Amino acid sequence: MSLSPEILQKLSNIVGDSFIFTDKEILNHYGHDETEDYVFPPNVVVKPANAQEISAILKVANEYKIPTTPIGARTGLSGGALSVYEGIGLSMERLNKILEIDEQNLQVTVEPAVINQVLREAVAEKGLFYPVDPSSMGSCWIGGNIAENAGGARAVKYGVTKDYVLNLEVVLPNGEIIWTGANTLKNSTGYNLTQLMVGSEGTLGVITKAVLKLLPKNNHNVLMLVPFYDAAQACEAVSAIFRAGIVPSALEFMEREAIDWTLRLVEGISVNVKPEHQAHLLIEVDGNYPEILMLEAEKIMTVVEQFDIDEVLFADTEDQKAALWKMRRSVAEAVKSNSIYKEEDTVVPRYMLPELLSGIKKIGEKYGFKSVCYGHAGDGNLHVNIIKGDMTDDNWETQVPLGIRQIFELTVSLKGTLSGEHGIGYVQKNFMDIAFSKAHLELMESIKRVFDHNNILNPGKIFPDEL
Amino acid sequence: MSLSPEILQKLSNIVGDSFIFTDKEILNHYGHDETEDYVFPPNVVVKPANAQEISAILKVANEYKIPTTPIGARTGLSGGALSVYEGIGLSMERLNKILEIDEQNLQVTVEPAVINQVLREAVAEKGLFYPVDPSSMGSCWIGGNIAENAGGARAVKYGVTKDYVLNLEVVLPNGEIIWTGANTLKNSTGYNLTQLMVGSEGTLGVITKAVLKLLPKNNHNVLMLVPFYDAAQACEAVSAIFRAGIVPSALEFMEREAIDWTLRLVEGISVNVKPEHQAHLLIEVDGNYPEILMLEAEKIMTVVEQFDIDEVLFADTEDQKAALWKMRRSVAEAVKSNSIYKEEDTVVPRYMLPELLSGIKKIGEKYGFKSVCYGHAGDGNLHVNIIKGDMTDDNWETQVPLGIRQIFELTVSLKGTLSGEHGIGYVQKNFMDIAFSKAHLELMESIKRVFDHNNILNPGKIFPDEL
Repeated sequence: MSLSPEILQKLSNIVGDSFIFTDKEILNHYGHDETEDYVFPPNVVVKPANAQEISAILKVANEYKIPTTPIGARTGLSGGALSVYEGIGLSMERLNKILEIDEQNLQVTVEPAVINQVLREAVAEKGLFYPVDPSSMGSCWIGGNIAENAGGARAVKYGVTKDYVLNLEVVLPNGEIIWTGANTLKNSTGYNLTQLMVGSEGTLGVITKAVLKLLPKNNHNVLMLVPFYDAAQACEAVSAIFRAGIVPSALEFMEREAIDWTLRLVEGISVNVKPEHQAHLLIEVDGNYPEILMLEAEKIMTVVEQFDIDEVLFADTEDQKAALWKMRRSVAEAVKSNSIYKEEDTVVPRYMLPELLSGIKKIGEKYGFKSVCYGHAGDGNLHVNIIKGDMTDDNWETQVPLGIRQIFELTVSLKGTLSGEHGIGYVQKNFMDIAFSKAHLELMESIKRVFDHNNILNPGKIFPDEL
Repeated sequence: MSLSPEILQKLSNIVGDSFIFTDKEILNHYGHDETEDYVFPPNVVVKPANAQEISAILKVANEYKIPTTPIGARTGLSGGALSVYEGIGLSMERLNKILEIDEQNLQVTVEPAVINQVLREAVAEKGLFYPVDPSSMGSCWIGGNIAENAGGARAVKYGVTKDYVLNLEVVLPNGEIIWTGANTLKNSTGYNLTQLMVGSEGTLGVITKAVLKLLPKNNHNVLMLVPFYDAAQACEAVSAIFRAGIVPSALEFMEREAIDWTLRLVEGISVNVKPEHQAHLLIEVDGNYPEILMLEAEKIMTVVEQFDIDEVLFADTEDQKAALWKMRRSVAEAVKSNSIYKEEDTVVPRYMLPELLSGIKKIGEKYGFKSVCYGHAGDGNLHVNIIKGDMTDDNWETQVPLGIRQIFELTVSLKGTLSGEHGIGYVQKNFMDIAFSKAHLELMESIKRVFDHNNILNPGKIFPDEL
């Protein structure tokens, strides 16, 4: 489609001449995120200053039935910010302020384009803690975190984005501006539109402010890297740690190749990975009392020593901790730089991890693909990177989707689901029938229609093409 | 309304002759809960055995447009289970089994009519912890807890019911049976219907199974009772404790009269309450390491000693702890036995508590009523008991509702809302305009219509009479 001069003029009147863009290069720039190699440029990019301008834009979009896609930091892995039906690209970048850090109530009010890590550091200066830490925390924005219900390494102890969102200012697709709830820790007042909005991937409304819960900051942690000779045993150890009564603040799983590729890509990490190590667990406990953390670390040692492990590395210095975390957070990038790939965000109850992992390998054998797996084992969230390597294009396009379907069928049969923290967006939508009945999907779509009669807001996401 | 013999026969065919009741005494029994003195008997009570029977009942209800109200343990405080438009009373009592305690995944699958405390004790036997503990935990059911998003004393550290619900089996008003999500700790797969269902007060579907998250059990706690000479100072101390970096596992506030009345009602609690004590804080910290708890208790002492307090009572024995908790949990009953009353479930950001409390007292003076306040100060959740005492019936009926409206207006102006953990149900619905715009309420009602085209499921709740 293309937008008429009349429409462009109306949009320009709203945001001002300096904040509307139709230059091809800019459209391309806003047409991709971190999802594989997809590029879906909008017809126009607008950069509104506030909720009122967004409201006016959405009214124009409704009047002319123009698809409108909210665009954040474009770090997403499911294509949620791609303008798959062109139209208006709504860049949120000017709504980038931390509005208030409320030390009395342990809350922060932010605009959506605040970088996750900027927020974390700003509240840390006040002795407060925002625990949600996606691997992309150095670049991803809080708005996108909320839209996709992002998780991260600390989710196992502290929960995911949804657990920190108290209240949202949202521009509804019809242009109405509402606050979804109240700035309270408890709320039993009407339907929970706050939680309906979290994870709705920009399809139900545009988030313009968020009130987030904070915690008092923990000052200490212990980090250890445990090498396993057998990947399935590493998965089994995960449940065993919880059953010993310990809730680690991070419990990350990396298959051998995830580490190999990362060590090749990232400089300055000295970890002694032997050829016999098939997987590693990166385990952190945190708290206020170092002596207790040492006790917990000893308990964890007792648990993991029941498995077939090599020598455990304790990170002694802050630098060593930073290096280990850098290694973990660079895995996705390393895999990406190594080969064309597809990433799935499977999640199961954590005890089902060994079964999921071995099932994925068998499915790979059947369909002829290799996979590199890593992720947040503490919450059963396994990122499955399917590697193209030297696979033919034909097999990549025909066999891999069949294999992915089988992986998701396995995931759901283990009481898990398609996505733990990346969202469904564009790339997983045609697998939604595996997790949900037609009636269930139609119910979700009816909710979408209640919010968005004309289906203008981020169309082409979440719902299968044929419903 | 009355139900025709044809309809009764159809219902009887579904549940069997032994599980359908039209006897007046039984209807009255199922026509009230713990909300003031309301009685709204249904025309018939049915006691289905499972989701399939409930599905069949709801299909009949749709066919004949019969209001149908799910009924739990009838411990509710907002009238959520009252059959205000008569029709079918759907007692959930036969769905009362703990189906599976999954020690590997720290999850439990329950039916809705399991008593909260029965669940807590069953999982505690396996070394696990279900933290949500409403005052009524000895009699309230998990289904009702989910429907109202119940909280409790430990919510300040552990969260409320919504934070433990992973997945729900729900019979939708049209008779469809769905699972809302997956049995996973993380989930970014479609709209969060699980959280939409939690707190929807039986208006969107009938919960027939719930998968709940569990934690490893903590083995130790320290409990202390702090008497304050000034109630506002007690409220101020609440925020100060958090700012000192401590997250207590309970932080309860009781006004003087709440304790007085309770000590008169409940036998066997020896607490030395002096006439000068205007309020008490009951403070608990919990964890795995007694020495750390003592440290935290000392930190709390340092904080509260900055206020004008009398001698702090540390509960030395399990009996003493039980007595203090019994005192706290008996306040509602004590107030109730003392006078006709109305209870409001106000909630604000916790630092706003002193302002809320003093505002409530001023409003009481203006409208001529006395209030006794207590509640979960750690999460800013203050239960306001408005006492009839020797007020005239006329003032009770005309002045008090005006005062309540002003209390809620104050609550909302402090960024709080109407209900923290009791729900809106029947008694607060005509105050919803204070918290929400008309457009917002209409949005919620449109969601209701998506689920329930004929408005058969628990009509007359949540939404104001005039919308």
